[in-house]
Amino acid sequence: MSRQSNRTTDSKKMNSELFTLTYGALVTQLCKDYENDEEVNKQLDKMGYNIGVRLIEDFLARSTIGRCQDFRETADIIAKVAFKMYMGITPSVTNWSPGGDEFSLILENNPLADFVELPDNHSSLIYSNLLCGVLRGALEMVQMAVDVKFAQDSLRGDNVTEIRMKFIKRIEENLPAGEE
Amino acid sequence: MSRQSNRTTDSKKMNSELFTLTYGALVTQLCKDYENDEEVNKQLDKMGYNIGVRLIEDFLARSTIGRCQDFRETADIIAKVAFKMYMGITPSVTNWSPGGDEFSLILENNPLADFVELPDNHSSLIYSNLLCGVLRGALEMVQMAVDVKFAQDSLRGDNVTEIRMKFIKRIEENLPAGEE
Repeated sequence: MSRQSNRTTDSKKMNSELFTLTYGALVTQLCKDYENDEEVNKQLDKMGYNIGVRLIEDFLARSTIGRCQDFRETADIIAKVAFKMYMGITPSVTNWSPGGDEFSLILENNPLADFVELPDNHSSLIYSNLLCGVLRGALEMVQMAVDVKFAQDSLRGDNVTEIRMKFIKRIEENLPAGEE
Repeated sequence: MSRQSNRTTDSKKMNSELFTLTYGALVTQLCKDYENDEEVNKQLDKMGYNIGVRLIEDFLARSTIGRCQDFRETADIIAKVAFKMYMGITPSVTNWSPGGDEFSLILENNPLADFVELPDNHSSLIYSNLLCGVLRGALEMVQMAVDVKFAQDSLRGDNVTEIRMKFIKRIEENLPAGEE
């Protein structure tokens, strides 16, 4: 399914429940399609990546946010603007590494997982792993290579859901041929 | 993935784009999984049905709407309350049959199909067919058997997207054993 680039910024605000249930249908389908949870996690991350590289265009158009000065600003924008816009929640940004290259997003509530319970035979499933892919894909499009993974998941018995983000490197913009 | 019934009505309003792209990932996955568009359409309808039978509980809790007096009231509630709530749009209700048992929902804009273009080899795909299933499933839970299908689809070259709904019958509520 291709998407045209003549994107407008008219906004349709909606409740999250239909999205939540549709996401559940997607995860259920992948659990049927793939042999084990690890494969499903990988697919969710890959799908999320493909979504992220497209969603960033919409995000930049809507938010009119320019280039972030540093990773701390990036963290704030992700939590306060992007999550608010597309998920309706504002995670808190915490647990910075001393070097300032790692932080956590703490989701008190994860709309994707609302009212979901993992069956016993899917104990390794990272149910909301699509989100990691979305963040990785979107940030790659603004020249940031990041590692994103779930550190805690309330679906797996943790008190909160924690997404850990680690800055890897700034990606060099492609220079026109002959100018390298 | 099971859902607990201790549902609350706190609402998380969000933009539709992440939902739109996630839905695209679901349709793409089904196109990989099934041999032809007809099978994909059937799966989307089935998934939608399963979503609808769950979503109705959330809808009734949020909207505090009681039993509709007739099919015309049902049509209005679907268009003005349900679509607004979960899709962020308000379709118009038109093309009533003389008997008052059929109407159309006209979607000027279909968030699910935003910026989507069907590839040539999927000319029979009813991309948003999940919606038909959702409506069918949700109405069945309030004792209405309806037939729901796309009559027009802007993705397939029509000017608007039209969902046609036909009332079939009122479903008798199950009586306790021995009282039939």
